[in-house]
Amino acid sequence: MRIALAQLNPTIGALEDNLKKITGYYQKALENQAGLVVFTELALIGYPPQDLLTYRHFLDKERKLIVNELAPLTAKNKTPIIIGATHQDNDRLYNAALLLEEGEIKSLHLKTLLPFFDVFDEERYFTRHYDRDIEILDGLPTAVTVCEDIWNDRDYFPVPIYDSDPLEGLFARGARLLLNLSASPYHLGKHALREEMLPFLARKYDTAVIYLNQVGANDELVFDGSSLVYNSRGELLYRSPADKEDLFYVDTDELYKPAKNVIPPDRDDIGTVNQLLKLGTKDFLKKTGFEKAALGLSGGIDSAVVAAIAADALGPENVLGVLMPSPYSTDHSIKDAVALAENLGIKYRTIEIYEPYYAFTGILNEEKTPILDLAEENLQARLRGNIMMHIANREKYMILVTGNKSELAVSYCTLYGDMAGGLAMLSDIPKMKVYELARYINESGGKEIIPQNIINKPPSAELRPDQKDEDSLPPYHILDPILKMYLEETLSPEKIIAEGYERETVEKVVRMVDASEFKRKQAAPGLRFTPNSFGRGRRMPVARGYQHW
Amino acid sequence: MRIALAQLNPTIGALEDNLKKITGYYQKALENQAGLVVFTELALIGYPPQDLLTYRHFLDKERKLIVNELAPLTAKNKTPIIIGATHQDNDRLYNAALLLEEGEIKSLHLKTLLPFFDVFDEERYFTRHYDRDIEILDGLPTAVTVCEDIWNDRDYFPVPIYDSDPLEGLFARGARLLLNLSASPYHLGKHALREEMLPFLARKYDTAVIYLNQVGANDELVFDGSSLVYNSRGELLYRSPADKEDLFYVDTDELYKPAKNVIPPDRDDIGTVNQLLKLGTKDFLKKTGFEKAALGLSGGIDSAVVAAIAADALGPENVLGVLMPSPYSTDHSIKDAVALAENLGIKYRTIEIYEPYYAFTGILNEEKTPILDLAEENLQARLRGNIMMHIANREKYMILVTGNKSELAVSYCTLYGDMAGGLAMLSDIPKMKVYELARYINESGGKEIIPQNIINKPPSAELRPDQKDEDSLPPYHILDPILKMYLEETLSPEKIIAEGYERETVEKVVRMVDASEFKRKQAAPGLRFTPNSFGRGRRMPVARGYQHW
Repeated sequence: MRIALAQLNPTIGALEDNLKKITGYYQKALENQAGLVVFTELALIGYPPQDLLTYRHFLDKERKLIVNELAPLTAKNKTPIIIGATHQDNDRLYNAALLLEEGEIKSLHLKTLLPFFDVFDEERYFTRHYDRDIEILDGLPTAVTVCEDIWNDRDYFPVPIYDSDPLEGLFARGARLLLNLSASPYHLGKHALREEMLPFLARKYDTAVIYLNQVGANDELVFDGSSLVYNSRGELLYRSPADKEDLFYVDTDELYKPAKNVIPPDRDDIGTVNQLLKLGTKDFLKKTGFEKAALGLSGGIDSAVVAAIAADALGPENVLGVLMPSPYSTDHSIKDAVALAENLGIKYRTIEIYEPYYAFTGILNEEKTPILDLAEENLQARLRGNIMMHIANREKYMILVTGNKSELAVSYCTLYGDMAGGLAMLSDIPKMKVYELARYINESGGKEIIPQNIINKPPSAELRPDQKDEDSLPPYHILDPILKMYLEETLSPEKIIAEGYERETVEKVVRMVDASEFKRKQAAPGLRFTPNSFGRGRRMPVARGYQHW
Repeated sequence: MRIALAQLNPTIGALEDNLKKITGYYQKALENQAGLVVFTELALIGYPPQDLLTYRHFLDKERKLIVNELAPLTAKNKTPIIIGATHQDNDRLYNAALLLEEGEIKSLHLKTLLPFFDVFDEERYFTRHYDRDIEILDGLPTAVTVCEDIWNDRDYFPVPIYDSDPLEGLFARGARLLLNLSASPYHLGKHALREEMLPFLARKYDTAVIYLNQVGANDELVFDGSSLVYNSRGELLYRSPADKEDLFYVDTDELYKPAKNVIPPDRDDIGTVNQLLKLGTKDFLKKTGFEKAALGLSGGIDSAVVAAIAADALGPENVLGVLMPSPYSTDHSIKDAVALAENLGIKYRTIEIYEPYYAFTGILNEEKTPILDLAEENLQARLRGNIMMHIANREKYMILVTGNKSELAVSYCTLYGDMAGGLAMLSDIPKMKVYELARYINESGGKEIIPQNIINKPPSAELRPDQKDEDSLPPYHILDPILKMYLEETLSPEKIIAEGYERETVEKVVRMVDASEFKRKQAAPGLRFTPNSFGRGRRMPVARGYQHW
């Protein structure tokens, strides 16, 4: 049998548009003699739909489209469809894979394992279903599974998260093909994890594995496609691209003999991050109805990387850089920002904040002139925020926030100031990785795209004369690993200190993180690249005691 | 037996402070000859701790305090403790009630029903536990339950949410007392619901019921105490206050004979809302370490109500009103705002935004003067936001956002402008209810606290000459019920139209709500008064298609 698999990039809730994509791929697969066409998890709705799932009429409409539009396609030919969709039964909602055949819903495979941690909320919407059976597809006994269903192997994971493993039952019933419909978002290291775990399952159960993933970004989550096909020896036969839709074919005959060409495993690296930042930015704009993005260009490394990636993702003609010098901006910053804009070929304009700044100190200070306290540093950042939002409102630009994760973690940023905007592209990228991105962009571009001076100079917010980040913060090569241990690995300060960091530094960093939850509650959505990232991945109370460390 | 019950107001994560409260109440209960002392759900940690629960060392510290500090108190006397706490077993975490007796943890009652909807996330942290047993307390067979455990009665709820009901097993084993340790947040109608459901259980199982609730606000959630005691006839014997801690006593002898005085059931009303807005504001400031609050006084109804409640909650000497007239402010607004501030006895100051406004139009408009587009309306709001945040940063005020739920729902507010601040007191209170609050404040105060002119005049944002809310929005008496049906009841537009509302209006309102998720993602936390409220209660994607209605 020839199976066609569609790695989809759906827009959440856009049922009609997603249906059009699905029927388009189905037709194309028919033309290519497919005997079965498979789509991703919740393909019509898009993943994650969040509380759209609480609207019953929305779910009813999804089902109507499946019954009235999609299933009928299978009536006229012998090519069934397997598609991820919701299923309602007896006032319970399930996350299901439906087999559409001969014009109707022929069978259901209801998801057992519902992820509930990090960015996932499936227990909020769906009921677990334990009773699973295999599907015979053209004679081939198949374990039809939905995403998390395959991620609880007791031989692979030292501490399985769930108390049951649906694969055990399905393979006890004789499955020879593991088919997985996924919507699995990216984080650093995910490629390596998938490409180790999936061949492990192939060998353990002597089964072929087809792993079909969603692609494209939905809000914070970037789905990195990279669908995979393994033969029953665990040899990799196919990998989809990470950043676009893909319709690919698998001949089941090929799955049970040695591979002609084994594809080497992928180790995701800074190139993957760059690629997915582009995808995340492009999709966020497209799916919110924007074409153009604007950002403040400070002459620093963060805004340089954001500008370069945005220019690459949207086309330089759709990116506007705004230079907003204050009395404390240095000449080199302005020069560097202009050089960057010209290297990228993006539009730029300069709007000085002198006049509103002095207008404000005039009405806010007794002596009328700046007194250079922290409030005035924040004021400068907010005046820039005002200008960016004014451009957004008047000229319909999406504003890109340029701050990185290290800053956001320790509160080295101004609420409603440099934090203002629609998408925080780098808010889950630590500062050291921003440098890595800058070097990668120049190296892979084969020329100096980001001016070397921007990469070389010590980072500064330039909100008062001669300010440097390191006046307030530990050096980033010390800060970043502490943040990783505290945020991603949820280690205690004592354990971090035991890793060889100074007590004083660790306690200061943890205190800064804990005390700034109120800011992050109001931060723009950011693209997620780590486990337990700020936003959906880390949900912390604002009003609380801090004695826990 | 004499049972002491402590209706606690814990601060999330403040283990040491909460322990001090707990031991203090225990000592007091001993002095009053209690034979058992009961505390609320997760009493040491406070509810809801959210992702603090993902930090193992935090949970270990909670357990250490229980084992080393709390349990030993019970070694020297015959008075055990029942307290809500986490329990770790075999890499799983449970939400438990612990019985501490003779110096150690004598038994465990692990929560079965974990709420997963609306503002609740318990499936994210805890494992369900089905195997439950009764506890014999001084000879009395008792069903020791944790919060949600009692909310799935198949005779009371037409569609039970969970597939099991722990009460059935516990009462089959002969329980005569239902003891419930709760942390149950308020929403409108909750009093009526509790005071109907609990006596129903008493009568159904012929059991006495002691319902012990947490009190006080934690971020968005306001826990309204109102702990309740019913005898086995379902007669109400005791109700705790809704807005403060309470240590109360129940003599178990009294629970199985007719009540001497039956307390009439409570119907929560606008007075309850006023009381809990005060509590929510007071606790948010206290638990984030603030003493003083500031707000913009526009002369409108929303800021008037916020100012009145803040003055009542924090003391007028701790509230600062800031008048920030623009060229489009009317004289009556300034006069009304001053009259309000003087009625309340709060501090106030006037900072005109003319100069920064013209400084901005000078650098942003070719013609240098205002052109009165939407961007400039937002600009005015953001200049006011700048001033408020400047006051916050320089003078350590918590900024209260004054917008109401109706505005926030349909996006009639400016991001980083009037939406800027630390707590959005009224963001879950619809406009019509803001009027009701204003009238209540004047009536219950016995004088004109909020000037009648503020209540009478048609609402206006005053961001351009002669602007009125009704130029852009349906009248609030039509808007509010549509919002309630769409947001709280998750009804489809078709069903709302069928209730008698115009198609055009309903579709416009739904479109406005759907299109403004991006703004609410960056809104300040607000106090919750309805089911599925913005914030934790309603989690919607930003980037999405809108065809679902």
